[in-house]
Amino acid sequence: MERPRHQGMAKNTYMRWRLPLVCLLWEVAMIVLFGVFVRFGPEADAHWEEEKQKMNVTSDIENDFYFRYPSFQDVHVMIFVGFGFLMAFLKRYGFGSIGFNFLLAAFGIQWALLMQGWFHSFKNGKILIGVENLINADFCVGSVCIAFGAILGKTSPIQILVMTLFQVTLFSVNEYILLNLLHVKDAGGSMTIHTFGAYFGLTVTRILYRPNLEQSKDKQGSVYHSDLFAMIGTLYLWLYWPSFNSAISEHGDAQHRAAINTYCSLAACVLTTVAFSSMLQKKGKLDMVHIQNATLAGGVAVGTSAEMMLTPYGSLIVGFISGIVSTVGYVYLTPFLESRLHIQDTCGIHNLHAIPGLIGGIVGAITAAAATEDVYGKEGIIKAFDFTGPYQTRTPSVQGGFQAAGIVVSVLMALAGGALVGAILKLPVWGDPAAENCFEDDVYWEVRRTPPRAEPLRRAAGSRPAAG
Amino acid sequence: MERPRHQGMAKNTYMRWRLPLVCLLWEVAMIVLFGVFVRFGPEADAHWEEEKQKMNVTSDIENDFYFRYPSFQDVHVMIFVGFGFLMAFLKRYGFGSIGFNFLLAAFGIQWALLMQGWFHSFKNGKILIGVENLINADFCVGSVCIAFGAILGKTSPIQILVMTLFQVTLFSVNEYILLNLLHVKDAGGSMTIHTFGAYFGLTVTRILYRPNLEQSKDKQGSVYHSDLFAMIGTLYLWLYWPSFNSAISEHGDAQHRAAINTYCSLAACVLTTVAFSSMLQKKGKLDMVHIQNATLAGGVAVGTSAEMMLTPYGSLIVGFISGIVSTVGYVYLTPFLESRLHIQDTCGIHNLHAIPGLIGGIVGAITAAAATEDVYGKEGIIKAFDFTGPYQTRTPSVQGGFQAAGIVVSVLMALAGGALVGAILKLPVWGDPAAENCFEDDVYWEVRRTPPRAEPLRRAAGSRPAAG
Amino acid sequence: MERPRHQGMAKNTYMRWRLPLVCLLWEVAMIVLFGVFVRFGPEADAHWEEEKQKMNVTSDIENDFYFRYPSFQDVHVMIFVGFGFLMAFLKRYGFGSIGFNFLLAAFGIQWALLMQGWFHSFKNGKILIGVENLINADFCVGSVCIAFGAILGKTSPIQILVMTLFQVTLFSVNEYILLNLLHVKDAGGSMTIHTFGAYFGLTVTRILYRPNLEQSKDKQGSVYHSDLFAMIGTLYLWLYWPSFNSAISEHGDAQHRAAINTYCSLAACVLTTVAFSSMLQKKGKLDMVHIQNATLAGGVAVGTSAEMMLTPYGSLIVGFISGIVSTVGYVYLTPFLESRLHIQDTCGIHNLHAIPGLIGGIVGAITAAAATEDVYGKEGIIKAFDFTGPYQTRTPSVQGGFQAAGIVVSVLMALAGGALVGAILKLPVWGDPAAENCFEDDVYWEVRRTPPRAEPLRRAAGSRPAAG
Repeated sequence: MERPRHQGMAKNTYMRWRLPLVCLLWEVAMIVLFGVFVRFGPEADAHWEEEKQKMNVTSDIENDFYFRYPSFQDVHVMIFVGFGFLMAFLKRYGFGSIGFNFLLAAFGIQWALLMQGWFHSFKNGKILIGVENLINADFCVGSVCIAFGAILGKTSPIQILVMTLFQVTLFSVNEYILLNLLHVKDAGGSMTIHTFGAYFGLTVTRILYRPNLEQSKDKQGSVYHSDLFAMIGTLYLWLYWPSFNSAISEHGDAQHRAAINTYCSLAACVLTTVAFSSMLQKKGKLDMVHIQNATLAGGVAVGTSAEMMLTPYGSLIVGFISGIVSTVGYVYLTPFLESRLHIQDTCGIHNLHAIPGLIGGIVGAITAAAATEDVYGKEGIIKAFDFTGPYQTRTPSVQGGFQAAGIVVSVLMALAGGALVGAILKLPVWGDPAAENCFEDDVYWEVRRTPPRAEPLRRAAGSRPAAG
Repeated sequence: MERPRHQGMAKNTYMRWRLPLVCLLWEVAMIVLFGVFVRFGPEADAHWEEEKQKMNVTSDIENDFYFRYPSFQDVHVMIFVGFGFLMAFLKRYGFGSIGFNFLLAAFGIQWALLMQGWFHSFKNGKILIGVENLINADFCVGSVCIAFGAILGKTSPIQILVMTLFQVTLFSVNEYILLNLLHVKDAGGSMTIHTFGAYFGLTVTRILYRPNLEQSKDKQGSVYHSDLFAMIGTLYLWLYWPSFNSAISEHGDAQHRAAINTYCSLAACVLTTVAFSSMLQKKGKLDMVHIQNATLAGGVAVGTSAEMMLTPYGSLIVGFISGIVSTVGYVYLTPFLESRLHIQDTCGIHNLHAIPGLIGGIVGAITAAAATEDVYGKEGIIKAFDFTGPYQTRTPSVQGGFQAAGIVVSVLMALAGGALVGAILKLPVWGDPAAENCFEDDVYWEVRRTPPRAEPLRRAAGSRPAAG
Repeated sequence: MERPRHQGMAKNTYMRWRLPLVCLLWEVAMIVLFGVFVRFGPEADAHWEEEKQKMNVTSDIENDFYFRYPSFQDVHVMIFVGFGFLMAFLKRYGFGSIGFNFLLAAFGIQWALLMQGWFHSFKNGKILIGVENLINADFCVGSVCIAFGAILGKTSPIQILVMTLFQVTLFSVNEYILLNLLHVKDAGGSMTIHTFGAYFGLTVTRILYRPNLEQSKDKQGSVYHSDLFAMIGTLYLWLYWPSFNSAISEHGDAQHRAAINTYCSLAACVLTTVAFSSMLQKKGKLDMVHIQNATLAGGVAVGTSAEMMLTPYGSLIVGFISGIVSTVGYVYLTPFLESRLHIQDTCGIHNLHAIPGLIGGIVGAITAAAATEDVYGKEGIIKAFDFTGPYQTRTPSVQGGFQAAGIVVSVLMALAGGALVGAILKLPVWGDPAAENCFEDDVYWEVRRTPPRAEPLRRAAGSRPAAG
């Protein structure tokens, strides 16, 4: 039944036994591990009624569900609709963009619940989960979606699943180092999600370098309608980013502030993206690639500092800069990375996540280091940076140093992890497509292709189309 | 003005007087009935200020609006965007899928507010409504959207409205029997919404069996772009299903738990759907029909039990099974139903709603029967199953029995109701399309058809398209 | 580098220096003004911890963030996705519809935060912002999106930005007059947003009248897929309108009530739109233009009164009427306005926003005038109309008079402002397109045009397309 390998170049992309095997075995593993480890946290458990009395909680509205569930749903939409449709700009890879993103995220959130659970929610041998865990799992998977953007169209679903397995694992380790060992603040994940995810993906795609990729160059672009589909992704990412950056901040002012800062940064980012998109094109026309991507850089770049007292004008400045940097990156850096460094970055994640992520880490370090009791209030500064317990004596400037260290750790972990995973994915057993079949749904999907509305085309030839 | 009937086969699909008459008369009826019966519930009435003092409520945040409105909006999106776009996979029936779904749902929610109001919110001669009623109306209409999926493309808008009128009525009766007489729990509606809606729709489509439907077989498929539109529907249904199953659960832990269970079940379901979609196709390629539909079966199948202590791993198991069952159904059962039983099920609701709905009912019965004070806590078990008042002495195992009875009642009600409504819809007065015009927007919609970007096509012939 | 003007008719649409200059300068101005004026409000500031104790707030859930953030996100989606995609019905102007709407809204919300801040949130020389300000900024921009609908396809991005600058300014003045000087209630903005925005836009487009617009008539319509994209906009506007009309109402019953009234009005509106769409077309077929637009009129028409005790049946009546009026407007009024009054209204905002806005203002005035202590309760009526301080002695009937005055003021402000701005936009320096290039993305966007799936077309000629 296996399709013959011919011409040396064609590859065996037959998935019939490999893909089902991976999906079923891994899902069974999830069930076993969930069975052993995962239980409801106190606020989702039926004992909550008694718990409330113990904790002296008088109203159900104090359940964390009501603080975070709306933000969770926004984040959830970003991961599945936002990333999925953003990547659907490719004219012939819409199924793969949306479908494989769906697959990797559905697997990834389960594995992330376990990995992050062991590190952060482990009590008496059980992982106790609640809505905050769901958000964190989505966050972790977000970093895989980012990396997926670099290898988009050039990998098999099995490779994507293998990458997800490893990346979620390494993400969780990196996150543990940053949040628990370095005691770094990174609520919107500039470092843990964006910097880590992007450099991870860029390293993987570097190792999977395909010298003959220009064979499928004609399929690597968009058509009019696929650009509109991609705008669905862009807009939902842009709109819900305030929820993303505030989703796991402390209750009250921190969530409120994170949303406002992100809103401001994103607004400014749109203006500078438009400005540079027009300025860097000879005819002065706008490029959908920039509008679809660089407008989001402002959200990435306040990921660390959004919950801090960055202030609205500080956010505007960050958004201003990141829109410029990201657009310039798309015009000059992406071609350079591809031709000189052999980094084939399908979606340009270097410009949307890597650099803005670094900016985000740096802005976070500076904002933390510059924190004063005057600005935050005495209790406010302790709450904002969690200067309690063993960190009681940490000062803002020291915190700034640790924040900076967090950037370095994230980059190093991403490079090392990406190299490892890239090497694994290079093994010739995963069913990746031949160079001339990249960016083509036909390889892994049943594509029903009928001439688009053939009959109307004929009719229209004889009758003038009416205007609306 | 009436178009002549010719050739015996062509049908009178002229809607100009019939459709407006139905819409206007029925809407006037709604106004009159709302005028007589519907008033704001205490939490939406301007007397709330005084009510609060009486009820000793200290904060406006205790208003049910803040517990349920975010979930309501998610459910609202599912009904109108989710179902509408999911059905827009048909290459030439996008207007009808989205537009008729819009129409039936807009009428249905009004009639459902009345029907469910008489049964559940009737006090001193008035129906008092609040946000929970809006959610329940959306739920009720969801069951009509499901049934609509079976007859999609083969019916006139009047038939659809007539079906909505009857189905909402019968839904409310069935719901009353289950929730009030049998005292069954079914927060996510595995039985009341999915099982009932699906078997209702399947019976209707059986009675409306069209022997010559292969005449429009070429229009019954999708094209590349219509499959992407359908993915919008799929993803919003998938993403917001945790809100669906938790929307009307008790405040606090029950809502929290229902969301987590649904999240887990849906995640597992994606993996097994992908596995079986690949495994059941000779070339091992994935089929968008499965990805669009079977990935949602996990949400249906925990509809009854999501608010119970199903546990995360229990949810994974349910999702695991329902993804398999649903995908297998699409491959083997749908063709069988059509060829042998003459059930023409356009969207395959049998695989997405009927069987997963049954699974959901059974899982609910087992989970209820297996409930113990150990797992739920003393107060928790009373709250979870509402063992109060006349049900004070009911035990979990008895509850399980009643749950099982609820499944049987729902199926029987659906078969009887569907037969009745199918017979009514078979009357030759409703303007249904001829067999060769099924799945074609042209019949009921002004379709402006211009050759898709004719000029660029010409241009492109002379110039190489640039890649992005 | 400038493209030569030739043939007298062709225009200089070269944006390379003008557009970046405007974007960058204005964004720098925003940063400076935000730096001088904008700070976090008490509920978003890190001093909240201390503030809480002062204000005797015991729980973080009392933070306004939790009352309004979900509604804010819904409104946010309406502005960017709703308006953007609704306008994407044009077959060759999808980039401009979505992209320019994105641009104007991103700039507009910043300027609105300042303008509205100076009028409403100015304390000790600073504008203190919170989530309610974000909603109000989105509202203000909504009125610009409406006006944009009238000039859609006929203006350059610079003209759009200039209009935004002025319209946001005038909106804020008008809003101040209505809300503060006349003490008018208008939570959903029938007057301030819809009436003002629509008459403003209609005046602008009247002054920019293009006698030769029929040169691009063939591009002014939709194609099948662009109509489906537009339905994304329609549905999100329709679904989230209850959030729009309730977003800034008082906590508690007012928000709850506003959502219910809007839900009811919108549902009724769909039925009458469908009825009249069919009735007014010779063949009785439905027109997507009506379904996309007139179904939303019910939301506009309860904008003022939704938070009042309009009652569910009152809302149905308002929705009933506005669906009819709006659809009739599309059929008869739009052609009349264009041919006789030279008002070229691309999206038909006269039918969707202007007339329903007027209806909304009138219904609001009547509902206010008819308010009684019996219906609202003694405290309820004071809370609902804010009859406190200097307005302690105002009676409902006097309030009704002021409401009516608010309509007149809004129309006059819109006409005067629109005339001024239209005159400014008529200056020949903004780079607007020639008549034959209207409704065409090519002018301002890099459009990659490849024949839509050329290869599959060829393949399909030789093989029968399979049906799904």
